[in-house]
Amino acid sequence: MAQNWTKADLGPVGSVPRTELKEKLNLSGCEVSVNRLEPGQALPFVHKHRLNEELYLVLAGQGEFWLDGEVVPLGEGDAVKVLPETGRCLRAGAEAALTYLCIQAAAGSLGPYTRTDGVIVDQRTGW
Amino acid sequence: MAQNWTKADLGPVGSVPRTELKEKLNLSGCEVSVNRLEPGQALPFVHKHRLNEELYLVLAGQGEFWLDGEVVPLGEGDAVKVLPETGRCLRAGAEAALTYLCIQAAAGSLGPYTRTDGVIVDQRTGW
Repeated sequence: MAQNWTKADLGPVGSVPRTELKEKLNLSGCEVSVNRLEPGQALPFVHKHRLNEELYLVLAGQGEFWLDGEVVPLGEGDAVKVLPETGRCLRAGAEAALTYLCIQAAAGSLGPYTRTDGVIVDQRTGW
Repeated sequence: MAQNWTKADLGPVGSVPRTELKEKLNLSGCEVSVNRLEPGQALPFVHKHRLNEELYLVLAGQGEFWLDGEVVPLGEGDAVKVLPETGRCLRAGAEAALTYLCIQAAAGSLGPYTRTDGVIVDQRTGW
């Protein structure tokens, strides 16, 4: 495998067990975890972060997000940004497992992006 | 809505049109886009990045990743890290649309994470 890209095969996204991609792929800008809570299961603690902002993205199922005492319903396709100092916890609904991504990156670390960081290059795919 | 979290509802993840979450949620550590290529459709250019590492995560469908001339098959649950200077392009397979996330973060920007950045706090959810 070339050094300029690295691939992992996680399997069907609705049924991946907890997987942490930073170590698996040697990510250097963020940690991305795939998480699964079984029906009715909650994370066993409330946590916050020192430096990192988190983005949660629900891939399948339903559940609830506890955010400093507010309870927010979660369903497929919900994306929730959580600032570092916010206490947070999740649980799956009684009827279905909850599968979600958690993307963790240092708050304020992103400079240019997409059209200000990407460069179209003169390479051709043949497609 | 509180200021310590922000939510967006994208809808079923296999059929979200291109959506950029940085502006929608005011993300400060990464850009996360949800992308969809119709069957047989390819991105119309090859691009690289100046500063940002990208992680592509396939949510549904099949396709191919072109990476500096190498062609890598893609299917649901494939996660591919791409270093900034790598020329990249994607296309969906002929039979199915390709839905994928692209997570963009500054290479080398992540310091502590998870157990070294997260802090368990003495708040109770009542769950």
